[in-house]
Amino acid sequence: MIVAMQGAASEQDIHAVIERMVELGFDVHRTTGAQQTILAGVGTPGHFDVAEFKVLSGVFDAYRISSPYKLAGRSFRPEGTKITFPNGVVVGGEEVVVMAGPCSVESKDQILLSAQQVAAAGAKFLRGGAFKPRSSPYSFQGMGLEGLKLLREVADQTNLLVITEVMEISQIELMLPYIDCFQVGARNMQNFNLLRELGYIRKPVLMKRGIAATIEEVLLSAEYILSGGNYDLMLCERGIRTYETYTRNTMDISAIPVLKKLTHLPVFGDPSHGVGIRDLVPPMALASVAAGADGLLMEMHPNPDKAMSDGAQSLFPAQLEKLMAQLRQLAPVVGRHIA
Amino acid sequence: MIVAMQGAASEQDIHAVIERMVELGFDVHRTTGAQQTILAGVGTPGHFDVAEFKVLSGVFDAYRISSPYKLAGRSFRPEGTKITFPNGVVVGGEEVVVMAGPCSVESKDQILLSAQQVAAAGAKFLRGGAFKPRSSPYSFQGMGLEGLKLLREVADQTNLLVITEVMEISQIELMLPYIDCFQVGARNMQNFNLLRELGYIRKPVLMKRGIAATIEEVLLSAEYILSGGNYDLMLCERGIRTYETYTRNTMDISAIPVLKKLTHLPVFGDPSHGVGIRDLVPPMALASVAAGADGLLMEMHPNPDKAMSDGAQSLFPAQLEKLMAQLRQLAPVVGRHIA
Amino acid sequence: MIVAMQGAASEQDIHAVIERMVELGFDVHRTTGAQQTILAGVGTPGHFDVAEFKVLSGVFDAYRISSPYKLAGRSFRPEGTKITFPNGVVVGGEEVVVMAGPCSVESKDQILLSAQQVAAAGAKFLRGGAFKPRSSPYSFQGMGLEGLKLLREVADQTNLLVITEVMEISQIELMLPYIDCFQVGARNMQNFNLLRELGYIRKPVLMKRGIAATIEEVLLSAEYILSGGNYDLMLCERGIRTYETYTRNTMDISAIPVLKKLTHLPVFGDPSHGVGIRDLVPPMALASVAAGADGLLMEMHPNPDKAMSDGAQSLFPAQLEKLMAQLRQLAPVVGRHIA
Amino acid sequence: MIVAMQGAASEQDIHAVIERMVELGFDVHRTTGAQQTILAGVGTPGHFDVAEFKVLSGVFDAYRISSPYKLAGRSFRPEGTKITFPNGVVVGGEEVVVMAGPCSVESKDQILLSAQQVAAAGAKFLRGGAFKPRSSPYSFQGMGLEGLKLLREVADQTNLLVITEVMEISQIELMLPYIDCFQVGARNMQNFNLLRELGYIRKPVLMKRGIAATIEEVLLSAEYILSGGNYDLMLCERGIRTYETYTRNTMDISAIPVLKKLTHLPVFGDPSHGVGIRDLVPPMALASVAAGADGLLMEMHPNPDKAMSDGAQSLFPAQLEKLMAQLRQLAPVVGRHIA
Repeated sequence: MIVAMQGAASEQDIHAVIERMVELGFDVHRTTGAQQTILAGVGTPGHFDVAEFKVLSGVFDAYRISSPYKLAGRSFRPEGTKITFPNGVVVGGEEVVVMAGPCSVESKDQILLSAQQVAAAGAKFLRGGAFKPRSSPYSFQGMGLEGLKLLREVADQTNLLVITEVMEISQIELMLPYIDCFQVGARNMQNFNLLRELGYIRKPVLMKRGIAATIEEVLLSAEYILSGGNYDLMLCERGIRTYETYTRNTMDISAIPVLKKLTHLPVFGDPSHGVGIRDLVPPMALASVAAGADGLLMEMHPNPDKAMSDGAQSLFPAQLEKLMAQLRQLAPVVGRHIA
Repeated sequence: MIVAMQGAASEQDIHAVIERMVELGFDVHRTTGAQQTILAGVGTPGHFDVAEFKVLSGVFDAYRISSPYKLAGRSFRPEGTKITFPNGVVVGGEEVVVMAGPCSVESKDQILLSAQQVAAAGAKFLRGGAFKPRSSPYSFQGMGLEGLKLLREVADQTNLLVITEVMEISQIELMLPYIDCFQVGARNMQNFNLLRELGYIRKPVLMKRGIAATIEEVLLSAEYILSGGNYDLMLCERGIRTYETYTRNTMDISAIPVLKKLTHLPVFGDPSHGVGIRDLVPPMALASVAAGADGLLMEMHPNPDKAMSDGAQSLFPAQLEKLMAQLRQLAPVVGRHIA
Repeated sequence: MIVAMQGAASEQDIHAVIERMVELGFDVHRTTGAQQTILAGVGTPGHFDVAEFKVLSGVFDAYRISSPYKLAGRSFRPEGTKITFPNGVVVGGEEVVVMAGPCSVESKDQILLSAQQVAAAGAKFLRGGAFKPRSSPYSFQGMGLEGLKLLREVADQTNLLVITEVMEISQIELMLPYIDCFQVGARNMQNFNLLRELGYIRKPVLMKRGIAATIEEVLLSAEYILSGGNYDLMLCERGIRTYETYTRNTMDISAIPVLKKLTHLPVFGDPSHGVGIRDLVPPMALASVAAGADGLLMEMHPNPDKAMSDGAQSLFPAQLEKLMAQLRQLAPVVGRHIA
Repeated sequence: MIVAMQGAASEQDIHAVIERMVELGFDVHRTTGAQQTILAGVGTPGHFDVAEFKVLSGVFDAYRISSPYKLAGRSFRPEGTKITFPNGVVVGGEEVVVMAGPCSVESKDQILLSAQQVAAAGAKFLRGGAFKPRSSPYSFQGMGLEGLKLLREVADQTNLLVITEVMEISQIELMLPYIDCFQVGARNMQNFNLLRELGYIRKPVLMKRGIAATIEEVLLSAEYILSGGNYDLMLCERGIRTYETYTRNTMDISAIPVLKKLTHLPVFGDPSHGVGIRDLVPPMALASVAAGADGLLMEMHPNPDKAMSDGAQSLFPAQLEKLMAQLRQLAPVVGRHIA
């Protein structure tokens, strides 16, 4: 940590800061300039809060000079993380992996047809929500356990993997037998108790960025899961909230190359939630892969106009097929491929 | 719902929209202007999603013309909600009610001293966190059940009420015997399963606005709790995330009068999280009450420089005392008082 | 315009709204539902402000049902705008056009070398600032007229076109003889007097999105220029201000396909200002073109570490060259090419 | 400046950074820790850009450790700036000074009646726009010079001072004879050429915060005016753009106490633009003064429903009168008064 004192700070102010730094376990190096004094704290104390120093008397500002996350940092595994799934699909390698399917499992017919279309287009995962607590208490809330079973059944028939969202600790065990990957939604990115439990299991997790989460906060949340011992973690940019309301969210495409630089974890893009408007999904999917995404998570529905949720942002099956063809052409430009 | 068609929309487009509206249960009134056609849907269908209509062919835009929340709306209880607590304290009446205390319960001595100082200053509730999942897995995580017992014990000694944060459904029953009011934190404002459960109990709840929640989303979340039958609900503005980083968040003081207009529920301000810097808390507390807040939630610590969390935004005891004196003078300007 | 009345609105409220609508020139169609009354205003009055209706007694909400811009709208010229430059370069056609160069013209040597490198990489425009009012009054402020002359001279030697920023009405005439395209910076996107003057000249303009401008505001500003008769206008996404501070701005890649849908004007991406960090520029440039951009505006400097401004976001010459090779491969995926 | 190196930085990286720091004029103090190396640059070089250092090889982060503004800083004039106007009104002293009037000067009758109502309510300045470039080219654009003359005439009749917005350098001389204070609007807060010119005149200026400006940027813009020698400068919070759209902007009340701490310049609040909805103006005006504002700038119109601009946010005359009575009661709570 570094503390820069104000030019007008008194010796007493400076000593109070030094004392507090030493108390936390820092060795303090002092540089006394003509304009101001700088205190560099070296060593490895446990947790500390730079905000605490910013409000001390005579302090100009205080800076943390190392990442607050360790296991999630690129340097922990410079070669990058690869996750191998049961049917041999590898995430984080050369292949760009596509996950697609409806927002919610609505019926056996709907999810079977979805799976067939997703598989035909060349995607590797079937997505679909079984538990859907919605922002209005009066909306459709999902099929629950029955939905999980349907996901597994149709995925097996179509040789797809299953990813679905987990919303509570109590659902983890319930879901385990039916799925290949847990999805942590944007609203749960800072549900630290849930993250901790997901660290203790041995099944891959894809964690979405919260709607107002900074990149640093994404990595701190990743650290929760990693620190439990579960290293099969993927991150996903899915749009942040800004002042622009034409799109449902503002998809921060730059978060993809930034995360690729800061962490070894695979990074996905979710253009469906990123923009919320069907016709904008293909250009944003292409942009995500052009910017370096390891995969895509997208909503597709056999009949989006009749979808029980998120219909406006779900692709028509023909749109997904056309997009996959473009992605196959695009991937090699950035040194990747799509099977 | 109203759907405004584009000038260039075809009769076929218009019919497709009408058909979908009728399917949802609307009676449709059509206005054919020289420039464009307008479709007004009247009646009371259940859930529908205007986004679905915005992407239909030929549609210029679609508008919901009634609130998506009913029980939370001002018109449901125009006179406003008053909540009476065990010791006779009333929230939502003429009195401005202050809740204060440390971020976390750290020890018996710390919380007892806090309670004495809070009571001496004239606040009515003691706040303090027992479960503290933090954004870093390496930070202090709270005293748990032991903390709850301490809160109750010292509150009883000082004639204060207890408010503390609930983070999971499983904590509700655990907390019930020890507390007077549940606090739902910003990160849980859209944890709909938790909200639903809090709707089924009969103990007051104070729900904070999420860091990126719109005012409409706050009211939709309130609806979850109210729809379970728990009407003893308070809302709390605690700062939203904006591009300005000088303060920890940007406290949206205008949300206070806006919420007072839109809902019958009491509205609090939390200047501690709103700004995150101790010396800015008093001016923002005064501003909150000037803007119409029914109460304040603030962090105070007997020794903020040694606090295990949120020290930088915790008031010194003497600051709280001085602030309470100013609040007592200010309240009558807006037709309120502080006991 | 549509006005949806509250359920509780009185007949008097409704009449007051109707009267005001008629006064503005609307024909009013009234739909009286069991729940609420809807007033549809048809016809073509001149300017009106929906906000005025939102605050009238008994009004639930009011909606504008047509675009506030006409000339900028896609339907004004569905086939899209193509701009042909003196040397035959066409913007808005099949070719993706790249503009590159240093932030500021610093010296003859620097700008000549820049032009040679930009031309060698295959870009068609040389960019460079001659007037540089900076956010600190103590920073380098540009070479002025001398800089303009240098731009023209080296561009002619390298067969490039010149684009440079205009900041004041008084600079327009000064710049006209030396440049091929005016650039309006983000800070001037709502300098309406400047926009109006640029509408009266007959030289192409590239207008950047303001740092906090909505897409609708971009198009309203475009309307200012178009309404003066200058149709050779290009728009440019260059990052908006959000809560994320890792990047200088958050580049809203989705604005590119949104603008392509809403307007006939060519749309550029400026990844240099969009992210502000050199190594993120190539992925964001690729993402821009993948999302449908008609061109790119980028900063490159022969020696970025010694640049007098924006060095941190300026590409090294070798980076530009490599990026151009990737762009040439990528463009055909989205039906474009780079010469 | 301080540069914190990454743990993995090489000696070569470190030397390259030191060399660049020395080149800029810094004396460099090196602290070599077990984990990482810290370079503290002391001395007073001219302009430099920390962003440049952040992208150098091996750098973890770089920090500016002094304010980029000098004249605007609190320490330049710790006692605060007081500005005395011709009729003896003092801004920045104990009195809270209110400026009110219509958005635009529309006619002699309208502005005279406005002035009478403003004066009767106890405000000290008449505001009113003469030049009104609007976001739509099809809206009312102001009365120009004729409007200026009317402002002066009616202000003299009612013993008020005149404040009006200047939008271009060419208007400065035109306005000088008629007004007492220039207003720089939010859109011009970074029009540095205009700011520089306003620094050369000797007439007070009130500068509004830009809609997406950080507090640091406000102070850098203030520096432009101060560095020209004009010290009679007031700042004004008027709402920033956030994701919340219920209000026109989000008024950042906390910016008032923050600015009071960081600068010696008087700070105003403009609740009319801050929220954009008439009935929210009084609570936000009270909140501004409670938070420490030196004055208020508000829109009032004799007949807001017929206003040619900003009617929805203009107070009725009776609202202004009632508000002034509340403000007179409130001011003493924070050690101020209203005459």
